[in-house]
Amino acid sequence: MIGTLAIVGVGLLGGSVAKAARAAGLARELVGIGRDRARLEAALRDRAVDRVTTELEAGVRGADFVLLGVPVLAIEELLARVWRAAPDGAIVTDVGSTKSGIVSAAERLAAERPLAFVGGHPMAGSEQSGYGVARADLFQGATVILTPTDRTEPRTLKAVAGFWESIGARVSTLDPETHDRVVAAISHLPHLVACALADGVARFQPEALEFAARGFKDTTRIAASDPSVWTEIFLANREALRANLEAFRLALAGLERAIVMGSGDALRAMLERIKTAREGLR
Amino acid sequence: MIGTLAIVGVGLLGGSVAKAARAAGLARELVGIGRDRARLEAALRDRAVDRVTTELEAGVRGADFVLLGVPVLAIEELLARVWRAAPDGAIVTDVGSTKSGIVSAAERLAAERPLAFVGGHPMAGSEQSGYGVARADLFQGATVILTPTDRTEPRTLKAVAGFWESIGARVSTLDPETHDRVVAAISHLPHLVACALADGVARFQPEALEFAARGFKDTTRIAASDPSVWTEIFLANREALRANLEAFRLALAGLERAIVMGSGDALRAMLERIKTAREGLR
Repeated sequence: MIGTLAIVGVGLLGGSVAKAARAAGLARELVGIGRDRARLEAALRDRAVDRVTTELEAGVRGADFVLLGVPVLAIEELLARVWRAAPDGAIVTDVGSTKSGIVSAAERLAAERPLAFVGGHPMAGSEQSGYGVARADLFQGATVILTPTDRTEPRTLKAVAGFWESIGARVSTLDPETHDRVVAAISHLPHLVACALADGVARFQPEALEFAARGFKDTTRIAASDPSVWTEIFLANREALRANLEAFRLALAGLERAIVMGSGDALRAMLERIKTAREGLR
Repeated sequence: MIGTLAIVGVGLLGGSVAKAARAAGLARELVGIGRDRARLEAALRDRAVDRVTTELEAGVRGADFVLLGVPVLAIEELLARVWRAAPDGAIVTDVGSTKSGIVSAAERLAAERPLAFVGGHPMAGSEQSGYGVARADLFQGATVILTPTDRTEPRTLKAVAGFWESIGARVSTLDPETHDRVVAAISHLPHLVACALADGVARFQPEALEFAARGFKDTTRIAASDPSVWTEIFLANREALRANLEAFRLALAGLERAIVMGSGDALRAMLERIKTAREGLR
């Protein structure tokens, strides 16, 4: 049981954490922190939080557990202010989609003032954003990756893992760099490719869009995600993203070569291998 | 009302046509034609068809309406045999995903013996294949593109359009070349890209797959489709596919450039434009 849980950024993820924590009775008091009072009021009306503030320091000051639910570059920026304002003994975590930069920033701050931090990334979300789409069950069955380092105290990891498990998530741990490579492969690259697919058709053959069926819609669904959030993710994880783009281009070139050369048998063998790999996903 | 409806290839599409035609009472007699008697027996047991045969000519011989439900290259190959076996007055159509090659083949045959043909392509399906996943409601609300040319008789177009509308589809018409460019953009290219995405991760970073969430699964779902069917589609439509691959590569390179240069504003503007285009899809 947490005394005061402060959530910085009450959008899809932060708002869903608030609703889930409330439903699970995880905290005595829930504080919503954000820039826009009108948006915070919605969470207050729902009783997802008990009070709201647009002042970060005021919100974080009596908190036992602080969750940063804003986009990745904003997390890096706000971390120093959270570090100064949070009381001794507070546990700080985040939901950012990239982890190396955030964890490095936290470890630099921890060198000056020890404060319990572990990075986190819930693998849940939607192409929609904002508190309006937040749901208490968003993390039920979802994987949350925590990214401890050798400087993370075991009790911090345990507390944050327990927090997510209490709202239905399965917790895995990866070091921050491995995390960033993994999410570049299974989240950031697919996102970038979906954007390029939608963009290529919209710019070069827009008349085709009226015939789009389920295949195209599924493949490009994530291209409708929040542009600001994804700008930050792409920039924050650009190194791992580029390495994965290379792997993608190699795979695409191999398929294209077989098609252009009319090598039916080679192409079929590639598609068989790919089908097997794709079906291996649970 | 059709006297005898012959369906060549009783898999996902042909089987769904059989079930839908039966449910709508569209034909007095339904004949299932295929290479594998065991698979045909399943349709017979369901009463989706009244009789089955593994001999194409025997099945097509008394038919008033012939639907070719096999993969694209097989349609091109079987067309000459259908042409010789079908009675005068029969209407012939198909469900192939590419149309230029099939329609050309039909027009070459029609120059020797006039027979009513119009090409068709139901924009419905699944990453699964075979009669086992056939459904009577597969075409409810789906778009079927018919590809008449200036040699198509209006009554043929009307009959085939009426057939699809009777089982719930919306019919659009495009000339065969436009059809092939459109489906390259909204179906074949997304399919190829989904395959390359799944393949790139599976080959170069397989350990990432265990973290795949909804975004990756949706984006790569179609990569689990039937390899033989897609080998034929990619080869049959390679010209239009290459043009669309170019458009995709341009779009991807534009996004990558903004990411590598750290141009947040330019990247956000691109993602805004893409989000708007994607949200424009119904």
